[in-house]
Amino acid sequence: MNTPSRIEHDAFGPVKIPSNRYWGAQTQRALGLFEIGEERFPTVLIRAFGLQKYAAARANVQCGVLATELASVIEPAAIELHEGRWDDHFPLTIWQTGSGTQTNMNANEVIANRANELLGQPLGTKTPVHPNDHVNRSQSSNDSFPTVMHVAAAIEVNRRLRPALDELRLALAERSQAFADVLKVARTHLMDAVPMTMGQTFGTFEHQLSNALARIDDALPRLLILPQGGTAAGTGLNAPAGFDGFFCATLAEATGLAFVPNPHKFEGMAAHDALVELSGALNTIATSLLKIANDIRFLASGPRCGLGELRIPDDGLTSSIMPGKCNPTIAEVLVQACFQVIGNHQTITIANASGNFELNVAKPVLVYNLLQSLRVLADSASVFARRCVRGLDVDREQVTTNVQRSLLAVTALNPVLGYDRVAQITATALRDRVTPRAAAIALGFLDGDEYDRLVDPALLAGGTASKR
Amino acid sequence: MNTPSRIEHDAFGPVKIPSNRYWGAQTQRALGLFEIGEERFPTVLIRAFGLQKYAAARANVQCGVLATELASVIEPAAIELHEGRWDDHFPLTIWQTGSGTQTNMNANEVIANRANELLGQPLGTKTPVHPNDHVNRSQSSNDSFPTVMHVAAAIEVNRRLRPALDELRLALAERSQAFADVLKVARTHLMDAVPMTMGQTFGTFEHQLSNALARIDDALPRLLILPQGGTAAGTGLNAPAGFDGFFCATLAEATGLAFVPNPHKFEGMAAHDALVELSGALNTIATSLLKIANDIRFLASGPRCGLGELRIPDDGLTSSIMPGKCNPTIAEVLVQACFQVIGNHQTITIANASGNFELNVAKPVLVYNLLQSLRVLADSASVFARRCVRGLDVDREQVTTNVQRSLLAVTALNPVLGYDRVAQITATALRDRVTPRAAAIALGFLDGDEYDRLVDPALLAGGTASKR
Amino acid sequence: MNTPSRIEHDAFGPVKIPSNRYWGAQTQRALGLFEIGEERFPTVLIRAFGLQKYAAARANVQCGVLATELASVIEPAAIELHEGRWDDHFPLTIWQTGSGTQTNMNANEVIANRANELLGQPLGTKTPVHPNDHVNRSQSSNDSFPTVMHVAAAIEVNRRLRPALDELRLALAERSQAFADVLKVARTHLMDAVPMTMGQTFGTFEHQLSNALARIDDALPRLLILPQGGTAAGTGLNAPAGFDGFFCATLAEATGLAFVPNPHKFEGMAAHDALVELSGALNTIATSLLKIANDIRFLASGPRCGLGELRIPDDGLTSSIMPGKCNPTIAEVLVQACFQVIGNHQTITIANASGNFELNVAKPVLVYNLLQSLRVLADSASVFARRCVRGLDVDREQVTTNVQRSLLAVTALNPVLGYDRVAQITATALRDRVTPRAAAIALGFLDGDEYDRLVDPALLAGGTASKR
Amino acid sequence: MNTPSRIEHDAFGPVKIPSNRYWGAQTQRALGLFEIGEERFPTVLIRAFGLQKYAAARANVQCGVLATELASVIEPAAIELHEGRWDDHFPLTIWQTGSGTQTNMNANEVIANRANELLGQPLGTKTPVHPNDHVNRSQSSNDSFPTVMHVAAAIEVNRRLRPALDELRLALAERSQAFADVLKVARTHLMDAVPMTMGQTFGTFEHQLSNALARIDDALPRLLILPQGGTAAGTGLNAPAGFDGFFCATLAEATGLAFVPNPHKFEGMAAHDALVELSGALNTIATSLLKIANDIRFLASGPRCGLGELRIPDDGLTSSIMPGKCNPTIAEVLVQACFQVIGNHQTITIANASGNFELNVAKPVLVYNLLQSLRVLADSASVFARRCVRGLDVDREQVTTNVQRSLLAVTALNPVLGYDRVAQITATALRDRVTPRAAAIALGFLDGDEYDRLVDPALLAGGTASKR
Repeated sequence: MNTPSRIEHDAFGPVKIPSNRYWGAQTQRALGLFEIGEERFPTVLIRAFGLQKYAAARANVQCGVLATELASVIEPAAIELHEGRWDDHFPLTIWQTGSGTQTNMNANEVIANRANELLGQPLGTKTPVHPNDHVNRSQSSNDSFPTVMHVAAAIEVNRRLRPALDELRLALAERSQAFADVLKVARTHLMDAVPMTMGQTFGTFEHQLSNALARIDDALPRLLILPQGGTAAGTGLNAPAGFDGFFCATLAEATGLAFVPNPHKFEGMAAHDALVELSGALNTIATSLLKIANDIRFLASGPRCGLGELRIPDDGLTSSIMPGKCNPTIAEVLVQACFQVIGNHQTITIANASGNFELNVAKPVLVYNLLQSLRVLADSASVFARRCVRGLDVDREQVTTNVQRSLLAVTALNPVLGYDRVAQITATALRDRVTPRAAAIALGFLDGDEYDRLVDPALLAGGTASKR
Repeated sequence: MNTPSRIEHDAFGPVKIPSNRYWGAQTQRALGLFEIGEERFPTVLIRAFGLQKYAAARANVQCGVLATELASVIEPAAIELHEGRWDDHFPLTIWQTGSGTQTNMNANEVIANRANELLGQPLGTKTPVHPNDHVNRSQSSNDSFPTVMHVAAAIEVNRRLRPALDELRLALAERSQAFADVLKVARTHLMDAVPMTMGQTFGTFEHQLSNALARIDDALPRLLILPQGGTAAGTGLNAPAGFDGFFCATLAEATGLAFVPNPHKFEGMAAHDALVELSGALNTIATSLLKIANDIRFLASGPRCGLGELRIPDDGLTSSIMPGKCNPTIAEVLVQACFQVIGNHQTITIANASGNFELNVAKPVLVYNLLQSLRVLADSASVFARRCVRGLDVDREQVTTNVQRSLLAVTALNPVLGYDRVAQITATALRDRVTPRAAAIALGFLDGDEYDRLVDPALLAGGTASKR
Repeated sequence: MNTPSRIEHDAFGPVKIPSNRYWGAQTQRALGLFEIGEERFPTVLIRAFGLQKYAAARANVQCGVLATELASVIEPAAIELHEGRWDDHFPLTIWQTGSGTQTNMNANEVIANRANELLGQPLGTKTPVHPNDHVNRSQSSNDSFPTVMHVAAAIEVNRRLRPALDELRLALAERSQAFADVLKVARTHLMDAVPMTMGQTFGTFEHQLSNALARIDDALPRLLILPQGGTAAGTGLNAPAGFDGFFCATLAEATGLAFVPNPHKFEGMAAHDALVELSGALNTIATSLLKIANDIRFLASGPRCGLGELRIPDDGLTSSIMPGKCNPTIAEVLVQACFQVIGNHQTITIANASGNFELNVAKPVLVYNLLQSLRVLADSASVFARRCVRGLDVDREQVTTNVQRSLLAVTALNPVLGYDRVAQITATALRDRVTPRAAAIALGFLDGDEYDRLVDPALLAGGTASKR
Repeated sequence: MNTPSRIEHDAFGPVKIPSNRYWGAQTQRALGLFEIGEERFPTVLIRAFGLQKYAAARANVQCGVLATELASVIEPAAIELHEGRWDDHFPLTIWQTGSGTQTNMNANEVIANRANELLGQPLGTKTPVHPNDHVNRSQSSNDSFPTVMHVAAAIEVNRRLRPALDELRLALAERSQAFADVLKVARTHLMDAVPMTMGQTFGTFEHQLSNALARIDDALPRLLILPQGGTAAGTGLNAPAGFDGFFCATLAEATGLAFVPNPHKFEGMAAHDALVELSGALNTIATSLLKIANDIRFLASGPRCGLGELRIPDDGLTSSIMPGKCNPTIAEVLVQACFQVIGNHQTITIANASGNFELNVAKPVLVYNLLQSLRVLADSASVFARRCVRGLDVDREQVTTNVQRSLLAVTALNPVLGYDRVAQITATALRDRVTPRAAAIALGFLDGDEYDRLVDPALLAGGTASKR
């Protein structure tokens, strides 16, 4: 290609870079070296680097180690990066050094070039703003990249995942109310059990979502602790006193999230336990959502040869061969998203387990998987709430028929007849293909009135006083 | 075999049982059916069933649905079970129905037989105490088994895991103090980096253990919520009002753990999210411990051709072929235990994801893996603390030599010389096989006195003021 | 405890051992050190050590490095170990050094003591037969333990897993034949689709089992390659020329399995790729069996409010609260066994990934999980075949009703009417709650005779000519 | 946005589509519905759809069910799709129905529109070429999508993964030759063991790669079996006799891969066991590559305070704070790629385990993860071979010093002195900080000449005759 180019220099010599690109020599070298895959960091991470470099510049000024003339161009350049203006100038995939150094250098280089440009310099001058000496001042990839990992994850949790889970919780709660009086048969071991209400079914789901939110909230405090200020290996070498506090204060103000310095910075660079913990919460939530999506899929199976108790709203999609077939598409998406989250959790777990000495060097793959989990779990939960749950309806004819046909409401007779005689009733009903009421009378255990008084599905579904 | 036997009956007919065994017909049938594997529930679960049946009998009496004459023999029988007297009368493996029904029935049968025996009856009479009607009164396997899962896990967390993790934390803290003044080279990307102290290394480990304890504590509240009282499917059918509260009060008193009723009992039977959450905490802790055990193994590698900075205490074990070879055996055990925990977490995750409708039917495999994780993580952490960490020593000659040979303390010169000139120093030192001090002087960047003042390892290791 | 004891010595000094135990000093030291968990190697591994020591003694004699007088007692002692006589003299759990050295030494010590006893010596003399110099002659734990891992796994695959999978395949094939003429509705996305036969359902399962066997067979050749002869680190130091060939020949003769020497012994000790590969096959098979067990569970759900197309044979087990409830217990066991296998695969994968340099030191945990997977998968598949699949029956009334009620047999009209008009038929039928036949006629697309000729479920189920 | 648009119709009514886009109504509906994530199918899958539609059109003509006039435009349109011309007209993410129906319809719609355009029609006419009736003729998403999954995976295996693994194998073999005479110390349990050669180290790696290729080859046959022709649910409804054979023949010719019809088409749609099997092979290979990358990283650690036996070629990348620091970047990338593959394997495993009845509905997430694993494993192995392994060098001074300092070459004396006396030598050498040679002489076990004759590192590294 004959793209016009310029020459930049780094410690290893000259490098040719496309003229209209703001990255520098280290980014360009990495681009030539890592010809692997297509996976990119999501923009939330790239833009979080803008915030991180902005907060670092502010802290450097506050500590007196960065000239305000330089900060006055570094800061707006960093803000532009945060606002998405330079997304296209981050050409690297996640397949790079395990410290994320190349993407940190990419951010340093873009901001340095842009800052120098704001001062009237052409790209590539590295002066007066130098990517390492000024943009990366008081920082290392060792502390900047994990800081950005936490910041990007915290933003996704707060702006995307929590609202989506809450949206789903509310949709389930609303259906629970709507179905509060719908009697249905419970199923244990997939087999017909005692009567309950469809409201209880959705109330169970709602309760799981409430717990999901609590789990996220438990993981948050450790997510807000940042290793910035640890610089090389966690020692804090070349970072002035107070840098970390100033940094977190600026970041907290910019995001509304209560970021605080890690009191033991080595920990925040050598290990990402807090991110495994967050992924563990997502993994737990994925198992909840799998249960919910699968129950809804199965309860809506049919329309004529399945359980057929729920009806999923029509989404306008159908089979390519079976005309008019209506499938639970959105529930299937949620299920698949959960599989992704569970597998990603494995990658994240091993990535964190593999750290050695003062640096975990699986940072890019770890944060890529974590941000993917956050995104797809949130998005699919939200679409599931809006396009599936809210439109769910009950087939009242089907649930009623089922309650009437089922056998095990007679369990209510245990305290009266004892377990062994009730077992005789169900065995007789099943063998003779009659209702348990008929079997109970035929066996002479009680008469019809007694039966109807003792075995009232609506009452049975109520359960213990503790739930009334 | 000509073992003497008796005949018991259940709803399906007569069953032959060895005369001296206290289990009954359903257990015996299961024994003949599930000829699979050898995995048993640990005794902590069997004995927790004793507690559960005891608390249920008390609650039944308090609710007025169990005669005190029967309770007066059921309760002591249950306590005997809790105290381990009937461990040998639980012959089933974990490979049984997914609700754990067979082990619940096993407990009902053993207690009923023992209770009747206390009243002078021979084994197998089922009267006056009936396993279902009295021992299992107001209960179902659906609520009893998951209750026992939580109780057993909570006991293991409190009596085994927390103390072990705390023991390890203290041992690491003690070594961190002991090595506070030992300068060593930090390693990032496995490569020599700037100076730090061995105290910081162990302080990082200690910090991870502090977080581990916090993670456990965050998972505990949801572990203490019990579904007992939900009976069939969660409806609470046949459980009297107030049963769940009385039950938890008795259990809390007996264990010192603040168990409370699940306000939404369906949730506690259909899903075991709280146990996946706990396993997620163990999974996170496993990654922490892997990092710690591996770092110690590598720092102690040698004795002559490895990193050789630490010395692991001799444990009297050696190679079968290489005489006198001393290996990091205990660290290897801890590493293997962590692998087990990570794999178990996967089993637990899938087991929970697989629930349908009102019952998760992977309870036995789920709780087996969870209790194994708790046990092996706790035991190996404790042995690691006592037999490895506490006896660790530093090879001061080796760490000192390393600090003197390493190149990157010159990073301290960045603020004075700028990144690019410092890069020249390290390149020169490496190429000419000289110290960076010599290279810096040869390049004319500063003289020896300036160098020694600016590049003082002991000072560099201190880091930022925020850590002083 | 006042157990009578004797004193044995090893390189580290004297050790007190219970008088009636055949293990020696290194085993006893390990017992005191590793107070962790309860997990034991299954006897198949302990007994495989008997075979391994026997074959090694034979090879040593053939190479002229072991006196026949010593071999004449070592060999019968090893055979006794193989035959299970000394199972109780292996007190260690799997939680030991990552090379399995302690269990290798346990075998050396038991055989040495027993061999000396056969020569009239008391336990503990270590002479004339020395555990290291003679029983372990030409061997190291480094090569002996991984050899035994392969041997035990190969035995389990051949004697337990293959027969069990084949038994299940045959049971499924038999049901496929029995149900060949049973028309039923297919389900895609859980929704009613076109007609098929129940024979095809079970034929699909049978086909998966055929593939399962092929997968096992593909993994076998690399399982039969043994690193014995590599001794320390793989170098073969102290093993005479030809030792490995003699060893494998004896082992092959004793087991009927075509064991061969690993041409690159380092590989067989530093990595256990062949065992991960085998576990990968088990993992794949677990997914197949999960599909099969779940399909059978769901098709048998009911009896009155589920799909109800299959009937699972009664196994005499029931609910503790719902009398007469019959659950798919055995399918649930198989499902749980598969979860275990999938989680174990994760442990095995990470264990193998963690090797460093010349030795993988996660051998005990790796082989423990692998042997557990082999055992529980085999046993549960066998019980599933014998106690569930063979007794499965079809509810012909239910499947027939379903076929008649379903809508999508009209897909057969696509080639005649085109996709869009067929879509109108199903939409009309669903909306008006009529049969698609009635809808097609009402829409005027064809008359009843044409419809019956073109939409014949029995014919449709046949499918393409390639399957006729 | 005011993008110009056209109206298309499907069975559900009119849909607005951007004028210059070739997709149709079902794609557009899906686009509005599934607002989830950013993950796209890689182009290899989209383009494989071009091949699939081409081969289907050919087979339809051969079976006489598609007019040649229509085929004459469908085929070139499909080929254009295969060649990448319409990549930008596949706007959907992988987060769609579990059958991949929307992407199959996307392909049908793009080809139909393009084919009609070739006949002079404007976009959106659906005539004379109809997306369902002609492009999708004799097909269903149920069989087309899994066919494409296999085709895309087979292409990636053959064109990308196999060559890359072979490239790495050759590079390792070449280094093994180059280092054949380099004596070094072996390490077991990370501790110094007996002497070996660096050639053996790399020979072990090479051997693992040879096995990796064999594992891939074992998985291939089942990958080449295609379910095409199964249409709805596997029944083959509406597919003419012989369609599947014609289809595979055309595809085989076009790709050079020996695709064959699945004799049991239900299996190829309801389950993706063959893909889990392939992923299992990748998982095994990932563990091999982790071992190799980690060994190389650790052997190259330093340059002055690590093991320092290897030197990794300089790649021009460095630390953002420690000037001149040279890190094992490419090995770290490979390690991270392996973590991804291991986690993806988990997603793939659960996705396959979740199938129900006649259709697995986790196809998109399954194939996305599989293709990602194939790509990143291949790419990173190739870069590792070219940019790291080929340039590896040995630090001969360091390895020689290590061999001289190490203790355990004395293991060679076991057959002469016996295990217990050799243990005395090493204990003495370690305690007195002398060479084992000096210790052996001091202990009076043998003289210097004997020692030198018996303990010759170069000879010891050779090992058993079987390896000479």
